Amino acid sequence: MRMRKKAWTNDMIEARKDCVVAEPEMYKSTWGQFSQNGEVHVEIGCGKGDYWLQMAHQYPESAWIAIEKDRDCAAIALKKSLDNTTSNMKMIIADAKDIGEWFERDEVDVLHLNFSDPWPKKRHTKRRLTHDEFLNVYKRILKKSGKLIMKTDNASLFEYSLVTFIQNDWQLLEVSVDYRRLEHPEDAITEYERHFMEMGQPIYRAVWTYNKEV
Amino acid sequence: MRMRKKAWTNDMIEARKDCVVAEPEMYKSTWGQFSQNGEVHVEIGCGKGDYWLQMAHQYPESAWIAIEKDRDCAAIALKKSLDNTTSNMKMIIADAKDIGEWFERDEVDVLHLNFSDPWPKKRHTKRRLTHDEFLNVYKRILKKSGKLIMKTDNASLFEYSLVTFIQNDWQLLEVSVDYRRLEHPEDAITEYERHFMEMGQPIYRAVWTYNKEV
Repeated sequence: MRMRKKAWTNDMIEARKDCVVAEPEMYKSTWGQFSQNGEVHVEIGCGKGDYWLQMAHQYPESAWIAIEKDRDCAAIALKKSLDNTTSNMKMIIADAKDIGEWFERDEVDVLHLNFSDPWPKKRHTKRRLTHDEFLNVYKRILKKSGKLIMKTDNASLFEYSLVTFIQNDWQLLEVSVDYRRLEHPEDAITEYERHFMEMGQPIYRAVWTYNKEV
Repeated sequence: MRMRKKAWTNDMIEARKDCVVAEPEMYKSTWGQFSQNGEVHVEIGCGKGDYWLQMAHQYPESAWIAIEKDRDCAAIALKKSLDNTTSNMKMIIADAKDIGEWFERDEVDVLHLNFSDPWPKKRHTKRRLTHDEFLNVYKRILKKSGKLIMKTDNASLFEYSLVTFIQNDWQLLEVSVDYRRLEHPEDAITEYERHFMEMGQPIYRAVWTYNKEV
Protein backbone atom coordinates (compact mmCIF):
# COMPACT_ATOMS: atom_id res chain seq x y z
CA MET A 1 0.00 0.00 0.00
CA ARG A 2 1.16 3.55 -0.64
CA MET A 3 1.95 5.56 2.49
CA ARG A 4 2.12 9.25 3.18
CA LYS A 5 5.70 10.48 3.21
CA LYS A 6 7.10 10.33 6.74
CA ALA A 7 9.68 12.76 8.08
CA TRP A 8 11.41 10.12 10.16
CA THR A 9 11.70 7.46 7.44
CA ASN A 10 15.36 7.97 6.60
CA ASP A 11 16.37 8.29 10.24
CA MET A 12 14.57 5.07 11.16
CA ILE A 13 16.14 3.12 8.30
CA GLU A 14 19.54 4.55 9.15
CA ALA A 15 19.10 3.64 12.80
CA ARG A 16 18.16 0.01 12.08
CA LYS A 17 21.42 -1.30 10.65
CA ASP A 18 20.95 -4.30 12.94
CA CYS A 19 18.09 -5.45 10.73
CA VAL A 20 18.24 -3.70 7.38
CA VAL A 21 20.41 -5.41 4.79
CA ALA A 22 21.73 -2.62 2.61
CA GLU A 23 23.45 -4.83 0.04
CA PRO A 24 21.44 -8.04 -0.15
CA GLU A 25 23.56 -9.45 -2.98
CA MET A 26 26.37 -9.73 -0.41
CA TYR A 27 24.35 -12.34 1.44
CA LYS A 28 23.59 -14.44 -1.61
CA SER A 29 23.88 -18.15 -0.73
CA THR A 30 24.45 -17.38 2.96
CA TRP A 31 20.98 -16.44 4.22
CA GLY A 32 20.89 -19.72 6.11
CA GLN A 33 23.20 -18.08 8.67
CA PHE A 34 20.12 -16.37 10.13
CA SER A 35 18.32 -19.67 10.56
CA GLN A 36 18.78 -22.40 13.16
CA ASN A 37 16.78 -25.07 11.35
CA GLY A 38 18.07 -24.21 7.90
CA GLU A 39 14.74 -22.82 6.69
CA VAL A 40 14.70 -19.52 4.84
CA HIS A 41 11.37 -17.70 4.50
CA VAL A 42 11.04 -14.62 2.32
CA GLU A 43 8.07 -12.29 2.34
CA ILE A 44 7.82 -10.17 -0.77
CA GLY A 45 6.05 -6.91 0.01
CA CYS A 46 5.88 -6.96 3.80
CA GLY A 47 3.98 -3.67 4.05
CA LYS A 48 3.86 -2.50 7.66
CA GLY A 49 5.58 -5.71 8.71
CA ASP A 50 2.90 -7.33 10.88
CA TYR A 51 3.12 -10.72 9.22
CA TRP A 52 6.92 -10.73 9.16
CA LEU A 53 7.10 -9.75 12.83
CA GLN A 54 4.50 -12.24 14.03
CA MET A 55 5.78 -15.15 11.99
CA ALA A 56 9.42 -14.54 12.90
CA HIS A 57 8.45 -14.84 16.56
CA GLN A 58 6.14 -17.79 16.00
CA TYR A 59 8.88 -19.65 14.08
CA PRO A 60 12.08 -18.31 15.67
CA GLU A 61 14.26 -21.11 14.35
CA SER A 62 13.74 -20.07 10.72
CA ALA A 63 15.15 -17.02 8.98
CA TRP A 64 12.50 -14.47 7.99
CA ILE A 65 13.56 -12.03 5.31
CA ALA A 66 11.15 -9.21 4.50
CA ILE A 67 11.28 -7.28 1.25
CA GLU A 68 9.59 -3.91 0.91
CA LYS A 69 10.24 -1.33 -1.78
CA ASP A 70 8.26 1.50 -0.19
CA ARG A 71 10.69 3.17 2.21
CA ASP A 72 7.94 4.73 4.33
CA CYS A 73 6.24 1.37 4.75
CA ALA A 74 9.54 -0.30 5.57
CA ALA A 75 10.25 2.40 8.17
CA ILE A 76 6.93 1.66 9.89
CA ALA A 77 7.77 -2.05 9.97
CA LEU A 78 11.16 -1.20 11.44
CA LYS A 79 9.62 1.08 14.05
CA LYS A 80 7.12 -1.60 15.07
CA SER A 81 9.88 -4.14 15.49
CA LEU A 82 12.21 -1.70 17.26
CA ASP A 83 12.22 -3.50 20.60
CA ASN A 84 11.60 -7.06 19.45
CA THR A 85 13.71 -7.77 16.42
CA THR A 86 15.31 -11.16 16.77
CA SER A 87 18.42 -12.35 14.97
CA ASN A 88 16.34 -14.34 12.46
CA MET A 89 14.73 -11.17 11.07
CA LYS A 90 16.20 -9.21 8.20
CA MET A 91 14.78 -6.59 5.91
CA ILE A 92 15.61 -5.68 2.34
CA ILE A 93 14.36 -2.27 1.23
CA ALA A 94 14.31 -2.57 -2.55
CA ASP A 95 12.21 -3.63 -5.50
CA ALA A 96 11.62 -7.40 -5.59
CA LYS A 97 12.22 -7.43 -9.34
CA ASP A 98 15.88 -7.92 -8.39
CA ILE A 99 15.21 -10.84 -6.03
CA GLY A 100 17.11 -13.21 -8.31
CA GLU A 101 20.29 -11.27 -7.58
CA TRP A 102 19.93 -11.57 -3.82
CA PHE A 103 19.18 -15.27 -3.44
CA GLU A 104 21.09 -18.22 -4.82
CA ARG A 105 19.54 -21.01 -6.83
CA ASP A 106 17.81 -23.43 -4.42
CA GLU A 107 18.21 -21.15 -1.40
CA VAL A 108 14.67 -20.31 -0.30
CA ASP A 109 12.22 -22.67 1.43
CA VAL A 110 9.08 -20.57 1.30
CA LEU A 111 8.11 -17.40 -0.53
CA HIS A 112 5.19 -15.51 1.05
CA LEU A 113 2.99 -13.10 -0.88
CA ASN A 114 0.46 -11.36 1.32
CA PHE A 115 -2.13 -8.99 -0.11
CA SER A 116 0.10 -7.93 -2.96
CA ASP A 117 -0.81 -5.02 -5.16
CA PRO A 118 -3.35 -6.42 -7.68
CA TRP A 119 -2.31 -4.10 -10.51
CA PRO A 120 -5.77 -4.47 -12.08
CA LYS A 121 -5.05 -2.72 -15.37
CA LYS A 122 -4.09 -4.98 -18.22
CA ARG A 123 -1.10 -2.85 -19.17
CA HIS A 124 0.29 -3.34 -15.65
CA THR A 125 0.03 -7.14 -15.75
CA LYS A 126 3.80 -7.48 -15.72
CA ARG A 127 4.00 -5.71 -12.37
CA ARG A 128 1.91 -8.37 -10.62
CA LEU A 129 4.11 -10.42 -8.32
CA THR A 130 2.64 -13.58 -9.85
CA HIS A 131 3.44 -12.67 -13.44
CA ASP A 132 5.33 -15.26 -15.52
CA GLU A 133 8.59 -13.34 -15.27
CA PHE A 134 8.51 -13.35 -11.47
CA LEU A 135 7.59 -17.05 -11.49
CA ASN A 136 10.69 -17.83 -13.51
CA VAL A 137 12.86 -16.17 -10.89
CA TYR A 138 10.97 -17.76 -7.98
CA LYS A 139 11.41 -21.26 -9.34
CA ARG A 140 15.16 -20.68 -9.56
CA ILE A 141 15.67 -19.41 -6.01
CA LEU A 142 13.29 -21.91 -4.39
CA LYS A 143 14.63 -25.18 -3.04
CA LYS A 144 13.51 -28.39 -4.72
CA SER A 145 10.59 -28.88 -2.34
CA GLY A 146 10.14 -25.14 -1.84
CA LYS A 147 6.75 -23.51 -1.76
CA LEU A 148 5.09 -20.26 -2.58
CA ILE A 149 2.19 -19.27 -0.33
CA MET A 150 -0.13 -16.51 -1.49
CA LYS A 151 -2.93 -14.80 0.40
CA THR A 152 -5.09 -12.04 -1.01
CA ASP A 153 -8.47 -10.38 -0.72
CA ASN A 154 -8.47 -9.61 -4.43
CA ALA A 155 -10.54 -12.06 -6.48
CA SER A 156 -9.11 -10.97 -9.83
CA LEU A 157 -5.49 -11.26 -8.73
CA PHE A 158 -6.24 -14.66 -7.21
CA GLU A 159 -7.92 -15.95 -10.36
CA TYR A 160 -5.12 -14.60 -12.52
CA SER A 161 -2.57 -16.31 -10.28
CA LEU A 162 -4.33 -19.70 -10.22
CA VAL A 163 -4.25 -19.83 -14.01
CA THR A 164 -0.75 -18.37 -14.37
CA PHE A 165 0.97 -20.79 -11.97
CA ILE A 166 -0.63 -23.76 -13.71
CA GLN A 167 0.31 -22.49 -17.15
CA ASN A 168 3.87 -22.28 -15.86
CA ASP A 169 3.80 -25.91 -14.69
CA TRP A 170 3.69 -25.22 -10.99
CA GLN A 171 1.74 -27.71 -8.92
CA LEU A 172 -1.17 -26.51 -6.79
CA LEU A 173 -0.81 -28.10 -3.36
CA GLU A 174 -3.53 -26.28 -1.40
CA VAL A 175 -6.23 -23.79 -2.25
CA SER A 176 -8.84 -21.99 -0.23
CA VAL A 177 -11.51 -19.58 -1.44
CA ASP A 178 -12.41 -18.61 2.13
CA TYR A 179 -9.34 -19.35 4.23
CA ARG A 180 -10.58 -17.82 7.46
CA ARG A 181 -13.76 -19.88 7.66
CA LEU A 182 -11.54 -22.33 9.55
CA GLU A 183 -9.05 -21.55 12.32
CA HIS A 184 -5.41 -21.44 11.20
CA PRO A 185 -3.28 -20.85 14.30
CA GLU A 186 -0.19 -21.70 12.25
CA ASP A 187 -0.64 -18.52 10.24
CA ALA A 188 -0.48 -14.92 11.47
CA ILE A 189 -3.41 -12.57 10.91
CA THR A 190 -2.38 -8.98 10.32
CA GLU A 191 -4.35 -5.88 11.16
CA TYR A 192 -4.78 -5.35 7.43
CA GLU A 193 -6.23 -8.84 6.96
CA ARG A 194 -8.50 -8.55 9.98
CA HIS A 195 -10.01 -5.44 8.47
CA PHE A 196 -11.10 -7.47 5.43
CA MET A 197 -12.37 -10.31 7.59
CA GLU A 198 -14.52 -7.89 9.57
CA MET A 199 -16.05 -6.63 6.34
CA GLY A 200 -16.96 -10.21 5.44
CA GLN A 201 -14.49 -10.25 2.56
CA PRO A 202 -13.21 -13.79 2.02
CA ILE A 203 -9.47 -14.34 2.14
CA TYR A 204 -8.13 -16.37 -0.78
CA ARG A 205 -5.05 -18.52 -0.31
CA ALA A 206 -3.08 -20.97 -2.37
CA VAL A 207 0.15 -22.93 -2.00
CA TRP A 208 2.19 -24.02 -5.00
CA THR A 209 5.43 -25.86 -5.57
CA TYR A 210 7.53 -26.18 -8.66
CA ASN A 211 8.63 -29.72 -9.18
CA LYS A 212 12.23 -29.29 -10.31
CA GLU A 213 12.54 -32.93 -11.29
CA VAL A 214 10.16 -32.57 -14.20
CA MET B 1 -31.05 -31.95 -3.86
CA ARG B 2 -33.34 -34.48 -2.28
CA MET B 3 -37.04 -33.96 -3.04
CA ARG B 4 -40.17 -35.06 -1.30
CA LYS B 5 -41.73 -38.09 -2.99
CA LYS B 6 -44.24 -36.96 -5.57
CA ALA B 7 -47.36 -38.93 -6.44
CA TRP B 8 -47.20 -37.98 -10.12
CA THR B 9 -43.54 -38.75 -10.67
CA ASN B 10 -43.98 -42.04 -12.48
CA ASP B 11 -46.86 -40.76 -14.58
CA MET B 12 -44.87 -37.72 -15.65
CA ILE B 13 -41.83 -39.77 -16.61
CA GLU B 14 -44.04 -42.26 -18.45
CA ALA B 15 -45.78 -39.43 -20.30
CA ARG B 16 -42.52 -37.82 -21.47
CA LYS B 17 -41.22 -40.49 -23.81
CA ASP B 18 -40.56 -37.68 -26.29
CA CYS B 19 -37.73 -36.50 -24.07
CA VAL B 20 -36.72 -39.24 -21.65
CA VAL B 21 -34.14 -41.66 -22.99
CA ALA B 22 -34.89 -44.95 -21.26
CA GLU B 23 -31.90 -46.84 -22.60
CA PRO B 24 -29.12 -44.31 -23.06
CA GLU B 25 -26.57 -46.96 -24.08
CA MET B 26 -28.61 -47.36 -27.27
CA TYR B 27 -27.64 -43.83 -28.26
CA LYS B 28 -23.93 -44.27 -27.64
CA SER B 29 -21.94 -42.58 -30.43
CA THR B 30 -25.11 -41.10 -31.99
CA TRP B 31 -25.99 -38.23 -29.63
CA GLY B 32 -24.92 -35.83 -32.34
CA GLN B 33 -28.24 -36.58 -34.07
CA PHE B 34 -29.89 -34.17 -31.62
CA SER B 35 -27.49 -31.39 -32.54
CA GLN B 36 -27.41 -29.15 -35.59
CA ASN B 37 -23.93 -27.78 -35.03
CA GLY B 38 -22.43 -31.07 -33.88
CA GLU B 39 -22.00 -29.91 -30.28
CA VAL B 40 -23.10 -32.22 -27.49
CA HIS B 41 -23.55 -30.74 -24.03
CA VAL B 42 -24.22 -32.95 -21.03
CA GLU B 43 -25.34 -31.70 -17.64
CA ILE B 44 -24.70 -34.15 -14.84
CA GLY B 45 -27.25 -33.68 -12.08
CA CYS B 46 -29.74 -31.29 -13.65
CA GLY B 47 -31.93 -31.04 -10.52
CA LYS B 48 -35.16 -29.26 -11.35
CA GLY B 49 -33.90 -28.65 -14.86
CA ASP B 50 -33.73 -24.86 -14.97
CA TYR B 51 -30.23 -24.72 -16.39
CA TRP B 52 -30.87 -27.45 -18.94
CA LEU B 53 -34.09 -25.80 -20.11
CA GLN B 54 -32.65 -22.28 -20.35
CA MET B 55 -29.43 -23.31 -22.02
CA ALA B 56 -31.15 -25.60 -24.54
CA HIS B 57 -33.23 -22.64 -25.65
CA GLN B 58 -30.33 -20.20 -25.60
CA TYR B 59 -28.22 -22.59 -27.69
CA PRO B 60 -30.83 -24.44 -29.77
CA GLU B 61 -28.32 -25.71 -32.31
CA SER B 62 -26.51 -27.87 -29.76
CA ALA B 63 -27.75 -31.06 -28.13
CA TRP B 64 -28.43 -30.71 -24.41
CA ILE B 65 -28.54 -33.98 -22.50
CA ALA B 66 -29.56 -33.80 -18.85
CA ILE B 67 -28.75 -36.54 -16.36
CA GLU B 68 -30.61 -36.81 -13.07
CA LYS B 69 -30.77 -39.83 -10.82
CA ASP B 70 -33.51 -38.55 -8.52
CA ARG B 71 -36.77 -39.49 -10.23
CA ASP B 72 -38.80 -36.87 -8.37
CA CYS B 73 -36.38 -34.14 -9.39
CA ALA B 74 -36.36 -35.38 -12.96
CA ALA B 75 -40.17 -35.38 -13.01
CA ILE B 76 -40.20 -31.71 -11.95
CA ALA B 77 -37.78 -30.86 -14.74
CA LEU B 78 -39.97 -32.74 -17.18
CA LYS B 79 -43.08 -30.97 -15.95
CA LYS B 80 -41.41 -27.57 -16.27
CA SER B 81 -40.38 -28.33 -19.83
CA LEU B 82 -43.75 -29.87 -20.75
CA ASP B 83 -44.72 -27.24 -23.28
CA ASN B 84 -41.32 -26.14 -24.45
CA THR B 85 -39.14 -29.15 -24.98
CA THR B 86 -37.23 -28.81 -28.21
CA SER B 87 -35.73 -31.63 -30.23
CA ASN B 88 -32.24 -30.87 -28.89
CA MET B 89 -33.26 -31.73 -25.29
CA LYS B 90 -32.99 -35.22 -23.88
CA MET B 91 -33.05 -36.56 -20.36
CA ILE B 92 -31.43 -39.60 -18.82
CA ILE B 93 -32.88 -40.64 -15.47
CA ALA B 94 -30.10 -42.73 -13.95
CA ASP B 95 -26.95 -42.56 -11.84
CA ALA B 96 -24.11 -40.75 -13.65
CA LYS B 97 -21.65 -43.37 -12.44
CA ASP B 98 -22.60 -45.25 -15.60
CA ILE B 99 -22.01 -42.27 -17.90
CA GLY B 100 -19.12 -44.08 -19.58
CA GLU B 101 -21.58 -46.65 -20.93
CA TRP B 102 -23.82 -44.06 -22.51
CA PHE B 103 -21.31 -41.91 -24.35
CA GLU B 104 -18.63 -42.97 -26.76
CA ARG B 105 -14.99 -41.99 -26.49
CA ASP B 106 -14.59 -38.40 -27.82
CA GLU B 107 -18.32 -37.79 -28.08
CA VAL B 108 -19.04 -34.93 -25.66
CA ASP B 109 -18.09 -31.27 -26.17
CA VAL B 110 -18.92 -29.89 -22.75
CA LEU B 111 -19.78 -31.48 -19.42
CA HIS B 112 -21.66 -29.19 -17.03
CA LEU B 113 -21.67 -29.66 -13.26
CA ASN B 114 -23.95 -27.22 -11.49
CA PHE B 115 -24.21 -27.12 -7.72
CA SER B 116 -23.41 -30.79 -7.34
CA ASP B 117 -23.85 -32.54 -4.03
CA PRO B 118 -20.70 -31.67 -2.03
CA TRP B 119 -20.61 -34.98 -0.11
CA PRO B 120 -18.67 -33.28 2.70
CA LYS B 121 -17.80 -36.39 4.68
CA LYS B 122 -14.44 -37.90 3.95
CA ARG B 123 -15.85 -41.40 3.60
CA HIS B 124 -18.13 -40.15 0.84
CA THR B 125 -15.32 -38.56 -1.19
CA LYS B 126 -15.77 -41.12 -3.96
CA ARG B 127 -19.33 -39.95 -4.54
CA ARG B 128 -18.25 -36.42 -5.46
CA LEU B 129 -18.74 -35.86 -9.16
CA THR B 130 -15.18 -34.51 -9.35
CA HIS B 131 -13.54 -37.54 -7.78
CA ASP B 132 -10.63 -39.14 -9.67
CA GLU B 133 -12.77 -42.04 -10.85
CA PHE B 134 -15.30 -39.75 -12.47
CA LEU B 135 -12.49 -37.70 -14.02
CA ASN B 136 -11.12 -40.80 -15.69
CA VAL B 137 -14.47 -41.43 -17.33
CA TYR B 138 -14.97 -37.78 -18.27
CA LYS B 139 -11.63 -37.56 -20.04
CA ARG B 140 -12.57 -40.58 -22.13
CA ILE B 141 -15.98 -39.34 -23.30
CA LEU B 142 -14.87 -35.75 -23.88
CA LYS B 143 -13.71 -34.68 -27.31
CA LYS B 144 -10.08 -33.65 -27.72
CA SER B 145 -10.81 -30.00 -27.08
CA GLY B 146 -13.74 -30.78 -24.79
CA LYS B 147 -14.33 -28.92 -21.56
CA LEU B 148 -15.80 -29.45 -18.17
CA ILE B 149 -17.50 -26.43 -16.61
CA MET B 150 -18.26 -26.50 -12.90
CA LYS B 151 -20.27 -24.04 -10.82
CA THR B 152 -20.89 -24.37 -7.11
CA ASP B 153 -21.66 -22.42 -3.97
CA ASN B 154 -19.69 -24.90 -1.89
CA ALA B 155 -16.17 -23.71 -1.02
CA SER B 156 -14.94 -27.11 0.13
CA LEU B 157 -16.12 -28.93 -2.98
CA PHE B 158 -14.59 -26.22 -5.15
CA GLU B 159 -11.24 -26.38 -3.39
CA TYR B 160 -11.24 -30.16 -3.53
CA SER B 161 -12.01 -30.02 -7.25
CA LEU B 162 -9.32 -27.45 -8.08
CA VAL B 163 -6.66 -29.68 -6.54
CA THR B 164 -8.09 -32.94 -7.90
CA PHE B 165 -8.29 -31.84 -11.53
CA ILE B 166 -4.72 -30.60 -11.45
CA GLN B 167 -3.45 -33.78 -9.82
CA ASN B 168 -5.12 -35.64 -12.67
CA ASP B 169 -3.32 -33.51 -15.26
CA TRP B 170 -6.31 -31.53 -16.42
CA GLN B 171 -5.59 -27.97 -17.49
CA LEU B 172 -7.34 -25.10 -15.75
CA LEU B 173 -8.61 -22.72 -18.44
CA GLU B 174 -10.74 -20.32 -16.40
CA VAL B 175 -11.45 -19.84 -12.73
CA SER B 176 -13.63 -17.47 -10.78
CA VAL B 177 -14.05 -17.19 -7.04
CA ASP B 178 -17.00 -14.82 -7.43
CA TYR B 179 -18.45 -15.50 -10.86
CA ARG B 180 -21.51 -13.28 -10.53
CA ARG B 181 -19.59 -10.11 -9.71
CA LEU B 182 -19.54 -9.67 -13.47
CA GLU B 183 -22.40 -10.12 -15.94
CA HIS B 184 -22.40 -13.39 -17.83
CA PRO B 185 -25.29 -13.30 -20.28
CA GLU B 186 -23.87 -16.40 -21.97
CA ASP B 187 -24.69 -18.47 -18.89
CA ALA B 188 -28.13 -19.22 -17.43
CA ILE B 189 -28.88 -18.34 -13.81
CA THR B 190 -31.23 -20.80 -12.13
CA GLU B 191 -33.66 -20.06 -9.32
CA TYR B 192 -31.43 -22.16 -7.07
CA GLU B 193 -28.37 -20.10 -7.95
CA ARG B 194 -30.22 -16.81 -7.60
CA HIS B 195 -31.14 -17.79 -4.07
CA PHE B 196 -27.43 -18.02 -3.17
CA MET B 197 -26.64 -14.77 -4.95
CA GLU B 198 -29.33 -12.99 -2.94
CA MET B 199 -27.75 -14.28 0.27
CA GLY B 200 -24.42 -12.80 -0.84
CA GLN B 201 -22.89 -16.25 -1.27
CA PRO B 202 -20.23 -16.13 -3.99
CA ILE B 203 -20.59 -18.52 -6.90
CA TYR B 204 -17.40 -20.42 -7.71
CA ARG B 205 -16.74 -21.53 -11.27
CA ALA B 206 -13.95 -23.23 -13.15
CA VAL B 207 -13.38 -24.56 -16.64
CA TRP B 208 -10.95 -27.37 -17.35
CA THR B 209 -9.84 -29.33 -20.37
CA TYR B 210 -7.90 -32.55 -20.63
CA ASN B 211 -5.23 -32.28 -23.24
CA LYS B 212 -5.42 -35.67 -24.91
CA GLU B 213 -2.22 -35.09 -26.85
CA VAL B 214 -0.07 -35.20 -23.73
